[in-house]
Amino acid sequence: MEDIKQSVVRQAMAAKTASRKLALLSTEQKNAILLAMADALDAQKENIIFHNEIDVDAAKETGLAAALIDRLTLTERRISEMAQGLRAVAAQADPIGGIVEDWTPPSGIHITQVRVPLGVIAMIYESRPNVTVDAAGLCLKAGNAVILRGGSEAINSNHMLIKIITVAAAAAGLPDGAIQFMETTDRQAVAEIIKLDQLIDLVIPRGGEEMIRDIRQNATVPVLAHGKGLCHTYIDKAADAAMAKKIAVNAKCQRPGVCNAMETLLVHADIAPRLLPELFDLYVQAGVEVRGDKSARAIVPAMKEATEVDWSTEYLELILSIKIVASLDDAIHHINRHGSGHSEAIITGDSEAARRFLSEVDAAAIFHNASTRMHDGSVFGLGAEIGISTQKLHARGTMGVKELTTTKYLVYGTGNIRE
Amino acid sequence: MEDIKQSVVRQAMAAKTASRKLALLSTEQKNAILLAMADALDAQKENIIFHNEIDVDAAKETGLAAALIDRLTLTERRISEMAQGLRAVAAQADPIGGIVEDWTPPSGIHITQVRVPLGVIAMIYESRPNVTVDAAGLCLKAGNAVILRGGSEAINSNHMLIKIITVAAAAAGLPDGAIQFMETTDRQAVAEIIKLDQLIDLVIPRGGEEMIRDIRQNATVPVLAHGKGLCHTYIDKAADAAMAKKIAVNAKCQRPGVCNAMETLLVHADIAPRLLPELFDLYVQAGVEVRGDKSARAIVPAMKEATEVDWSTEYLELILSIKIVASLDDAIHHINRHGSGHSEAIITGDSEAARRFLSEVDAAAIFHNASTRMHDGSVFGLGAEIGISTQKLHARGTMGVKELTTTKYLVYGTGNIRE
Repeated sequence: MEDIKQSVVRQAMAAKTASRKLALLSTEQKNAILLAMADALDAQKENIIFHNEIDVDAAKETGLAAALIDRLTLTERRISEMAQGLRAVAAQADPIGGIVEDWTPPSGIHITQVRVPLGVIAMIYESRPNVTVDAAGLCLKAGNAVILRGGSEAINSNHMLIKIITVAAAAAGLPDGAIQFMETTDRQAVAEIIKLDQLIDLVIPRGGEEMIRDIRQNATVPVLAHGKGLCHTYIDKAADAAMAKKIAVNAKCQRPGVCNAMETLLVHADIAPRLLPELFDLYVQAGVEVRGDKSARAIVPAMKEATEVDWSTEYLELILSIKIVASLDDAIHHINRHGSGHSEAIITGDSEAARRFLSEVDAAAIFHNASTRMHDGSVFGLGAEIGISTQKLHARGTMGVKELTTTKYLVYGTGNIRE
Repeated sequence: MEDIKQSVVRQAMAAKTASRKLALLSTEQKNAILLAMADALDAQKENIIFHNEIDVDAAKETGLAAALIDRLTLTERRISEMAQGLRAVAAQADPIGGIVEDWTPPSGIHITQVRVPLGVIAMIYESRPNVTVDAAGLCLKAGNAVILRGGSEAINSNHMLIKIITVAAAAAGLPDGAIQFMETTDRQAVAEIIKLDQLIDLVIPRGGEEMIRDIRQNATVPVLAHGKGLCHTYIDKAADAAMAKKIAVNAKCQRPGVCNAMETLLVHADIAPRLLPELFDLYVQAGVEVRGDKSARAIVPAMKEATEVDWSTEYLELILSIKIVASLDDAIHHINRHGSGHSEAIITGDSEAARRFLSEVDAAAIFHNASTRMHDGSVFGLGAEIGISTQKLHARGTMGVKELTTTKYLVYGTGNIRE
């Protein structure tokens, strides 16, 4: 596979060269390029849809699941949303050049810690073609070169999207090689790029658990992964019942197949007898299969039985496990034991209980009186997101432009030496 | 090796439990523990030295190099410095609970990004026993539990240091299991702990390149490594000659065996004829072997010849390679090609040249008119350092208390759901 390796190295070297130039672009130059990319997408909707239909037809022929075909399909509205996403990223503050810290220690040197681009990012993702545009925009705003590697199902759509945005970006002043797409869908190309630690600064895999595990195990380049979400909602004894029902239904049902949807509902024993029967009816109406522990089934015998394995299962579909807890401490303990550190919520009117829950639960985002589904870059006002990190190093939670940067120390002396 | 695995898992589980309690300690509680540890070290100097002598005698018997024996040896003064290091860490601002960002996006939720501990850190290091105390202090201040694994040469010293600081810390309120030492020096224990990603949040290896490479390749826990330093000093044509000589000698000679010492000196062609002969004499007086490129040897024929391999060699001893460059651009290009991204310096009176160098050189710390040897946690005023990172993710450059933390989003709603 020497040819694939050579072509990957060539792309990475071109990206490295481009990254040096990108780091020196002004905010105005980067924003002008982003807006040119957005306008080009709006202007070429028909062209994009024409190429997307080739992918969608092929996916239907190979019998891809309806949900995946939906994710793959581009409509005029979805293309408009991509363009709007780029404009939102342009409107964001530019983190590059920002001063993180600035001080003069007793040694007399003056130190400024400034925010700078990471360099070159490899983005490896599946099916959804909007990731192509989102990632290109976020990486560019942060001053990084990017090599995009999309799934084979979306190859025609991605091809056309990349062609449109890179032609528009080049005309607006983007350095050659700053946004690149991997032409090959050969898996060998991924295996090669994740080992180029002299040229690539970060790999972001976004897709199935298996793909992420494989990249983590084999990469020598640092990896920032969009992790799995085993999210809980805890309804405290001091919860407002109406609010609790609204949030508990939203967290499970609004879009069950995504990482920030709820998988397990914890209900305080004092409020369960009053709340659970009605909540169970709401779930049944929404088509949710409810599995309860012994105490929950004592209140609503119609529930299926939850077993130990349910507490550690990310269903990603309309199934919910419910557990009755005796105290706030039990809820926190259950979450810290079974949660994936993604998004956790407490519904309560008791501010001390909320304070303790937010302080003691170990997760990327913890919600008081809000749905875990709110953990999202655009809901958080970041314009777009490159993913949600469940790791603790570098970035935790939704990742926007700032998370695609690093820092460096600029040190100003007057002839200072180490004694 | 089931016993070693079991004992490592038991330590890691105890550390995880302790980390939940540590995260809730107040700044005052943590500082009181740090000061108690410092006082205990001061009070037990004789005891420490007695046990250290066992290690030093053994090292001499096995024929350890003099430099390594020096690093291993504890004196009254060195123990005082360790105690002072703990007091300096206590005097540092506590990053935990600090608000990184705070905003209300259009979606109406209120978001606070707060700084929290990482959790459990495994610190794997060689020979120098002061790392035991520095790492314990820094991890504690950041609210983390730590498992320390020192080298076998220092086992008696480390044992006694750990006993003294943990007894004092426990009496001052440190949760059980928060500072632990690995009793075994079996390599299997390291191989086990770096795979406990469900219990350990970060591994910090500090030692030889081979040890770090091995940990990077086999760990499933995230790794923050103290990287190698191939550091340059560039003397620009507009440099003050006296300052240039002072810094160039300091960067090479003050302590050549450490990562922030200079390995290659770049000199602008316009200033080289005036500067190089005198600088060469200074280096020869200091016992430095100087290897020059063709242009440097045309000015000082007594220099040895530098070959291509010299530009990528971290000597870590009194050897220096010198290259004459035709321009600032050539200097930046050489550094970005051969440097390890650690510490780089420019000596110049031309502020525009300095601005370009600081902006375009890609490294953790870049110095204008100061020695690369100044890249150090205590010189930077951070009290102590856990190492110097040459990677770009999470932490770059000298790492103090703040680099041992992460963040979480606390989100406050009023019943907000995703539409």
